[in-house]
Amino acid sequence: MTREDYQHRIEQFLDSVPLSSSSFISSSQLHEAMRYSALGGGKRVRPLLVYATGEALKINVDLLDLPAAAIELIHAYSLIHDDLPSMDDDALRRGKPTTHIAFDEATAILAGDALQTLAFQLLSNPVQGICAENQLKILNILAIASGPDGMVKGQSIDLAAVGKQLTEDELEIMHNHKTGALITASVEMATYCMETKEQANSEEIVKKRRSLTEYSQAIGLAFQVRDDILDIQSDTETLGKQQGSDIAAGKPTYPSIMGMSATKEKLFNLNKKALDSLIDFGEEADSLREIASFIVKRIA
Amino acid sequence: MTREDYQHRIEQFLDSVPLSSSSFISSSQLHEAMRYSALGGGKRVRPLLVYATGEALKINVDLLDLPAAAIELIHAYSLIHDDLPSMDDDALRRGKPTTHIAFDEATAILAGDALQTLAFQLLSNPVQGICAENQLKILNILAIASGPDGMVKGQSIDLAAVGKQLTEDELEIMHNHKTGALITASVEMATYCMETKEQANSEEIVKKRRSLTEYSQAIGLAFQVRDDILDIQSDTETLGKQQGSDIAAGKPTYPSIMGMSATKEKLFNLNKKALDSLIDFGEEADSLREIASFIVKRIA
Repeated sequence: MTREDYQHRIEQFLDSVPLSSSSFISSSQLHEAMRYSALGGGKRVRPLLVYATGEALKINVDLLDLPAAAIELIHAYSLIHDDLPSMDDDALRRGKPTTHIAFDEATAILAGDALQTLAFQLLSNPVQGICAENQLKILNILAIASGPDGMVKGQSIDLAAVGKQLTEDELEIMHNHKTGALITASVEMATYCMETKEQANSEEIVKKRRSLTEYSQAIGLAFQVRDDILDIQSDTETLGKQQGSDIAAGKPTYPSIMGMSATKEKLFNLNKKALDSLIDFGEEADSLREIASFIVKRIA
Repeated sequence: MTREDYQHRIEQFLDSVPLSSSSFISSSQLHEAMRYSALGGGKRVRPLLVYATGEALKINVDLLDLPAAAIELIHAYSLIHDDLPSMDDDALRRGKPTTHIAFDEATAILAGDALQTLAFQLLSNPVQGICAENQLKILNILAIASGPDGMVKGQSIDLAAVGKQLTEDELEIMHNHKTGALITASVEMATYCMETKEQANSEEIVKKRRSLTEYSQAIGLAFQVRDDILDIQSDTETLGKQQGSDIAAGKPTYPSIMGMSATKEKLFNLNKKALDSLIDFGEEADSLREIASFIVKRIA
């Protein structure tokens, strides 16, 4: 399937998730805020990675919808909370007012909280075709990647880094937590979408998982490097968020640390590293290769 | 074991949980805020219910630590977020400054986020003595109870209800979500802490689970009714939070809807209902009975 096919698939799947039953007084406000934040927009990079990894391992696509949706819900929750006034204080996201602007701050916090819970709820429902051990592993990967040693830690470092001069290594540690952890989790979760524990831990899959993890680490960082370039070279309308906002907020970026030319070279090298990691795969990994190119070349 | 034994046990267990590894710049700030909010205080009612339910079903206490800790982490996260300026705007909790006062708002939001994730992370680690199917079920119970159809929905209703006149039924729906869902989940999670799926779904356990759920629903509501009474009759120092804050915030309470005398009668009836639900249990349910009395008589 093409990238557009998968984007369409996850859009429809997310739309079908009962984001919350609406009843009594205005809990429908919560419901609306959850849908507003999770639906209708975004590149869906993390679900794309789940599906493309599934393709590379010839996994039935139906088994991938729940992990793809769960990780996108975690991403959506993190965006809502990151945009809050006490955090990055952003007014625009995906070309629309951020959730706390479109609704209010309390509703935005609650909608983020609820989207996080919903991700784990989805992954803990029994499913056909994935054993309970593998399901627990998938859930554990997502929890570790998004929690206090993963994404949340990255955001915490990010807030503390405002106005500071970081080294390239420090910047990389920040991004590896803030963005990289979920990108790697997308790939790793997909490698456990199998019927038995033995399949998921077979020699063949363990070897492939290692290559896929390397791939994901390279594109995770490439994604952020490209983001930093776009923050300078793109415009607000194309980005769907405020152009130049990182620099305006005094956040360290690759161009500010190493200059634009070295930043572009770094991006090129990360792309090469990602493709090299897939050397043992045939055309079944073409979707993963396409995502790597997309991340490097994307304009928004 | 006594209530104090269990309170001590959960305190020590929570203290041993790696709330987040600390390294690099100030993610130790996040770590400190998580510990500040989760440790050293609170009645630990939800963990007590996990342990006491385990006693009633003669479950090995070692199997109960993780669910007990996970549900307390969810409770701790909800308190941090509920106290935020855009929500209930409370400055005092458990006799200490609330997390956003002791740290800052961004750190409080992130610490809450991370505590929620950590709860699911703990429950998705493989454990000896509980099969993966039962673990998934335990996790699913917690997710449903705390998410957009449970606790978060309750908080959303609560915010929308400020300054409105609710009926007794409406108030009950609010509390059943906001507080009741997690109290019931504490009891239900414990009933799945078993080696096999067959044990957890045996006729005997299914029947007992039904009685225990009835018990938990009665004490969940009793807990809130007692809270409303204390909000009027206690004082700030004893409560560890601002006395009269519900009334000051224009929140509907049982005494404001039905008067103090009828509220006390309601509390008495709920306590009776809780004890009646345990009629088929012997002395192995004495801890549950003691918790019911504690909830009705507590002064803070």
